[in-house]
Amino acid sequence: MGFGRMHRKEDARFVRGKGNYVDDVNLPGMLHGSFLRSPYAHAKIVSIDTSAAEALPGVKAVITGAVLETLSLAWMPTLSYDTQAVLATDKVRFQNQEVAFVVADNHYIARDALELIEVEYEPLPVVADAKQALAPGAPVIRDDKEGKTDNHIFDWSAGDKEKTDAVFASSDVVVAEDILYPRVHPSPLETCGAVADFDKVTGKLTIYSTTQAPHAHRTVYALVAGLPEHKIRVISPDIGGGFGGKVGIYPGYVLAIVGSIVTGKPVKWMEDRNEHLTATAFARDYHMRGEIAATKDGKIRALRVDVLADHGAFNGTAQPTKFPAGFFHIFTGSYDLEAASCNVKGVYTNKAPGGVAYACSFRITEAAYLVERMIDVLAFELKMDPAELRMKNLLQPAQFPYTTPTGWEYDSGDYPKALRLAMDMVGYEKLRVEQAEKLQRGEYMGIGISFFTEGVGAGPRKHMDILGLGMADGAELRVHPTGKAVLRLSVQTQGQGHETTFAQIVAEELGISPDDIDVVHGDTDQTPFGLGTYGSRSTPVSGAATAIVARKVRDRARIVASAMLEVSPDDLEWEKGKFFVKGDPDQAKTIQEIAMAAHSSLELPEGVEGHLDATTVYNPPNLTYPFGAYICVVDVDPATGQVKVRRFIAVDDCGVRINPMIVEGQVHGGLADGIGMALMQLMAFDEDGNHLGASLMDYLLPTSLECPSWELGETVTPSPHHPIGAKGVGESATVGSPAAVVNAVLDALKPFGVRHADMPLTPSNVWRAAQGRPIRTDLAIQ
Amino acid sequence: MGFGRMHRKEDARFVRGKGNYVDDVNLPGMLHGSFLRSPYAHAKIVSIDTSAAEALPGVKAVITGAVLETLSLAWMPTLSYDTQAVLATDKVRFQNQEVAFVVADNHYIARDALELIEVEYEPLPVVADAKQALAPGAPVIRDDKEGKTDNHIFDWSAGDKEKTDAVFASSDVVVAEDILYPRVHPSPLETCGAVADFDKVTGKLTIYSTTQAPHAHRTVYALVAGLPEHKIRVISPDIGGGFGGKVGIYPGYVLAIVGSIVTGKPVKWMEDRNEHLTATAFARDYHMRGEIAATKDGKIRALRVDVLADHGAFNGTAQPTKFPAGFFHIFTGSYDLEAASCNVKGVYTNKAPGGVAYACSFRITEAAYLVERMIDVLAFELKMDPAELRMKNLLQPAQFPYTTPTGWEYDSGDYPKALRLAMDMVGYEKLRVEQAEKLQRGEYMGIGISFFTEGVGAGPRKHMDILGLGMADGAELRVHPTGKAVLRLSVQTQGQGHETTFAQIVAEELGISPDDIDVVHGDTDQTPFGLGTYGSRSTPVSGAATAIVARKVRDRARIVASAMLEVSPDDLEWEKGKFFVKGDPDQAKTIQEIAMAAHSSLELPEGVEGHLDATTVYNPPNLTYPFGAYICVVDVDPATGQVKVRRFIAVDDCGVRINPMIVEGQVHGGLADGIGMALMQLMAFDEDGNHLGASLMDYLLPTSLECPSWELGETVTPSPHHPIGAKGVGESATVGSPAAVVNAVLDALKPFGVRHADMPLTPSNVWRAAQGRPIRTDLAIQ
Repeated sequence: MGFGRMHRKEDARFVRGKGNYVDDVNLPGMLHGSFLRSPYAHAKIVSIDTSAAEALPGVKAVITGAVLETLSLAWMPTLSYDTQAVLATDKVRFQNQEVAFVVADNHYIARDALELIEVEYEPLPVVADAKQALAPGAPVIRDDKEGKTDNHIFDWSAGDKEKTDAVFASSDVVVAEDILYPRVHPSPLETCGAVADFDKVTGKLTIYSTTQAPHAHRTVYALVAGLPEHKIRVISPDIGGGFGGKVGIYPGYVLAIVGSIVTGKPVKWMEDRNEHLTATAFARDYHMRGEIAATKDGKIRALRVDVLADHGAFNGTAQPTKFPAGFFHIFTGSYDLEAASCNVKGVYTNKAPGGVAYACSFRITEAAYLVERMIDVLAFELKMDPAELRMKNLLQPAQFPYTTPTGWEYDSGDYPKALRLAMDMVGYEKLRVEQAEKLQRGEYMGIGISFFTEGVGAGPRKHMDILGLGMADGAELRVHPTGKAVLRLSVQTQGQGHETTFAQIVAEELGISPDDIDVVHGDTDQTPFGLGTYGSRSTPVSGAATAIVARKVRDRARIVASAMLEVSPDDLEWEKGKFFVKGDPDQAKTIQEIAMAAHSSLELPEGVEGHLDATTVYNPPNLTYPFGAYICVVDVDPATGQVKVRRFIAVDDCGVRINPMIVEGQVHGGLADGIGMALMQLMAFDEDGNHLGASLMDYLLPTSLECPSWELGETVTPSPHHPIGAKGVGESATVGSPAAVVNAVLDALKPFGVRHADMPLTPSNVWRAAQGRPIRTDLAIQ
Repeated sequence: MGFGRMHRKEDARFVRGKGNYVDDVNLPGMLHGSFLRSPYAHAKIVSIDTSAAEALPGVKAVITGAVLETLSLAWMPTLSYDTQAVLATDKVRFQNQEVAFVVADNHYIARDALELIEVEYEPLPVVADAKQALAPGAPVIRDDKEGKTDNHIFDWSAGDKEKTDAVFASSDVVVAEDILYPRVHPSPLETCGAVADFDKVTGKLTIYSTTQAPHAHRTVYALVAGLPEHKIRVISPDIGGGFGGKVGIYPGYVLAIVGSIVTGKPVKWMEDRNEHLTATAFARDYHMRGEIAATKDGKIRALRVDVLADHGAFNGTAQPTKFPAGFFHIFTGSYDLEAASCNVKGVYTNKAPGGVAYACSFRITEAAYLVERMIDVLAFELKMDPAELRMKNLLQPAQFPYTTPTGWEYDSGDYPKALRLAMDMVGYEKLRVEQAEKLQRGEYMGIGISFFTEGVGAGPRKHMDILGLGMADGAELRVHPTGKAVLRLSVQTQGQGHETTFAQIVAEELGISPDDIDVVHGDTDQTPFGLGTYGSRSTPVSGAATAIVARKVRDRARIVASAMLEVSPDDLEWEKGKFFVKGDPDQAKTIQEIAMAAHSSLELPEGVEGHLDATTVYNPPNLTYPFGAYICVVDVDPATGQVKVRRFIAVDDCGVRINPMIVEGQVHGGLADGIGMALMQLMAFDEDGNHLGASLMDYLLPTSLECPSWELGETVTPSPHHPIGAKGVGESATVGSPAAVVNAVLDALKPFGVRHADMPLTPSNVWRAAQGRPIRTDLAIQ
């Protein structure tokens, strides 16, 4: 009972195939919708003729941008209120942009009808490369309604530039490197989809959707389309993975709703894999130039970064990804620097909208990768051991709470202890000996280290002015008369095991068995308001809310027990699951007895309500800061470019672990993700803006074949401001692992004089790097 | 906005035929269940052979009591934990008692299968009459598990018998009368039914049912069957009338659940009219002897009552109906007496379980009828005008709060004012002249008066020891970011207009339009715990909870507004829909603006959570006491027994009226009900215990043809302890009207020397009364 390893409660249905995903939702009379998409990355739309499609038997509606304009629904699809109309009207700005939506009796008829729609396009010159976007004479992608005359989006800075420049000017060593975090896609197993059901009589709109943020979606639907918020119910049933890609509002959600309003029937929209890979959730695409300043004995003094951020044709999904708050927040990583500054320029290109917070909020992943790569670049130049260089510069326990050069406050940590543990686990010093011996034999082994700090649990009010959104999450706990409980959360799960973890928190606080506690989420009609699951915020925010709400219930139970036992509440002592009279443990009432009494005829003190329920909304006073030390060991064959990840040691400190088994599962997934990014994942485009990663045969994801048997370690530094000291772990490994893998490969390639090479380190790119040739990121499978 | 006449929001769907009743619920793979019922009122079950039924193609399960015993579900059907097994095993105790349940692919197959079940019965002698139940040698109905040796259930008393006897002994005038309130049935348009859906994988049991008390049902299912409470969801969708008959748990609800557990499929059970009329909700059946003591000039001094209560074969439905709390509470009516005492004896008979609180809690209807009939009997003996006699004895305004002889406290009232208003409306004095003139012409007109007080809103803790149940109800209010709201209530509606009334209370308190407020109820997964809708308690209890929860939200809004306007909360003033700075009305924030700010990045004071939600559970400090003065004018033809209700004046005081249109609709319904009871409704049985009212052709309900154009008046005496001063009105007219109609008919028959005649005053009974013959209540249609 309480914290500890236990099997996931939700698996009872998943392993039996009884999950209920959006595509399992089939309503009586339901119609099916499908999109016509642009074949061009940049083209004028001269005309759209839908008459043949409309005439096809079984077609119920053909919706174009012109049709949308006749409705009184001012639809824009993103949480950031971008100006992207859900259907292109004047021109298309990326390949596979949505042009029309057919609603028909079934999916096959809808697809057939798409082929009958005649669209006349006038192709325009394409900007497929961020670096060309701002070049003089570059085609202007968005020149219509916004009055734009170039492809510039924003130019934002953080840190003290003057001070940083001064430190650089006075430093012994300055090293610069161009580092790309390429465009990738989170690619969960389940694509995006929705079933919308509008009831004309009651005005009630029910949307089953794959969203990670049902409440935020509801509010946006209300704000943007003017639908009455209390008549909107967003249900996200079981979700097959999200990784940040299901936070935003895509045109499909909107068109399912519009389709249902227009036809008066439920409408299902479900992406196929190609649509999902080409028109939804693109991330990263950060072209970074890092500069690091240090003393010649390896004390790092300052970091200076310039970023060119490729946002594609629109600022997709959530606002925070547009503003690089996380990058600014944490680009100095886990190190004690004198100064740091950073500039990020955003540009439009003719690609699908980018900037999704793929398994890490607000560009933290890019920052973590940059700084860990720069440390190794500095080590390369100083000819220092990268572990030694890190040890020399890591923040010390006494420095916490630590204020970063950009003004954020890391809550707690013992970084050297975590790195030392990882080094002990891998046998670091022996391994360096082995590496040298192997090299003698012509075998290229690499050891890569990455140390990361992640700020999670968005977010505290003090940073609200940056994030621009309320950031609280709610929890409501009801203990029924017989002592069974239901916990209702604003956050939703996409596989993280919320139904187990949150039940365990209540169990720990109240002594009720986790089996007697159901967790309800993913339904705006059944849960309190909150921002949803992303940025590893479920445990930091909703976990805190859950502990608090359980404690509120316990406080109430104390009063009820005092009335039952006829003693003062102060004379009672709590022992998991019951209150007893101090000094007389036989005089006790269990939480179950108290629950029944609270709902019955018991006389309670004046003003005390008869129930065992409580509600809370938690707005964290600060982020929590999980961290970790990762060490990756690879064998590289420079002749074929083949990389074999032999070992991977991950020491994670996410504070108190509620269910270690679930924590480890989360870490396993993130580590695999890191191997994917480092070695294979790449969303490439050709110079005409054509997608080169439009299927899972072209866009490669890691499998168990590429993964070693993970070796996990832990340290526990509780968050001082979190009620149960937990920090969140959902994205840690995705943040921390890419640099470890890349550093390992480049460590193996050091004998070839390679200081840096960009991801993905596919066999051909590894071969190129060893040959001193440039890395290619404009090709698909290599 | 707020209180006042407005159309019912729910009618938008009802008038379009878009209501969703239990019988509209059809789930994939759903099976249908039907009962085999006993043809005998009293018989031993020798054997049950289900083999032929089981062999019928399409039959999925045949469940008998023996099958039930093999399951680990200890099912008893009633809220009072009566010992009635849901299926008879050893013997049957009333006609149409449930013997077996067939679950089949459709309803037709289930019905066919019933005919294949062979049951061997051994008929036993029947007790069909309450007065015979305690006679020496009467067959003992329940002698099996309880070790009973006679048909006695209970013998309870209230009031000071000694003092009452002393007052009687010293009084000028003592009059006694035997008064029957016959057995009736509430007969809503929709019969009872359920769809149960048990999910073996998740253990979740969802029950769509016609219950008036979804939360109480859930808890009982958990307690009685050991099903985990948090895995049970009771949904009562739109309900086609209840009138108290849908409070209890009937065997059908249980068997639908058992059927679903056994077959693994959803199971629907839906009564037909015959089943509903013979096996569910019987009420009244009170054989009362009243004695009244007075001075010779008409000052009433004391009341003494003996009741023989026919409860049928089991104590059906809710506990409180077994204990005559309401009768004890209010049997002295609206009058100022020196003393009163009362005794109620309960007996078993071979009839379907009785004691349902049909449109009035805990026997209040019987009490109101008794006292108003006794007043007229006294007036008859004293040859006084019944209005004058009432005026002389009504409680005076200065006497409130008034403690009754049995210790209950009437909250507020101005009784003489209400009676005077009714007399003025009808033109009482002129009407008496007209009556005398008519009699001269051989026309028999009658004027009947009834004054009633009803105690509603069960219930305050101080009477908990009597009622034996927690009596609180919950309300939860969420104001969404855009300022639209959802109110969640533990009570459910069966047609009372909750979706409108409760939205109006929130509107009144917060200045949000009722159209922007949805009321959610009838779903245990979506609402806080509470006892449900009966005893006119929705407005007294949940109405109070709603006002309180809205005020909690307003208090919270004040804090948010103070942060927005940067002033102290105390410097703000509330004006419907907004807060403004005292002395500077332009500095204002609307509730909608406040809602958005509460959910956003606004910096709130330490410890203040960022939302506009609140929850409450209201446990009333006392009952509320609506009252009223009714006057009925009838024309009677003594030759045919025909009664024509010419006029009906109803002055109701239910405190503050939230939506007068809905109040009037409630009164209209109750008045019709009173005409039905007085003139036609009767659940008769023959001497073998056979039902004589098993269809709506035999059990007569009033229609518009029998009803006059109602003339309604009102006085307003707010309840001093209710947050908005409302008192509840759902049952008032059912309580008050039968005596007015009966008194009118008997007033018309006074020339024939008739002092009393029992309901129903059907043409044949009126004819009999005029002839001096005994009233018959053992016949169906007459």
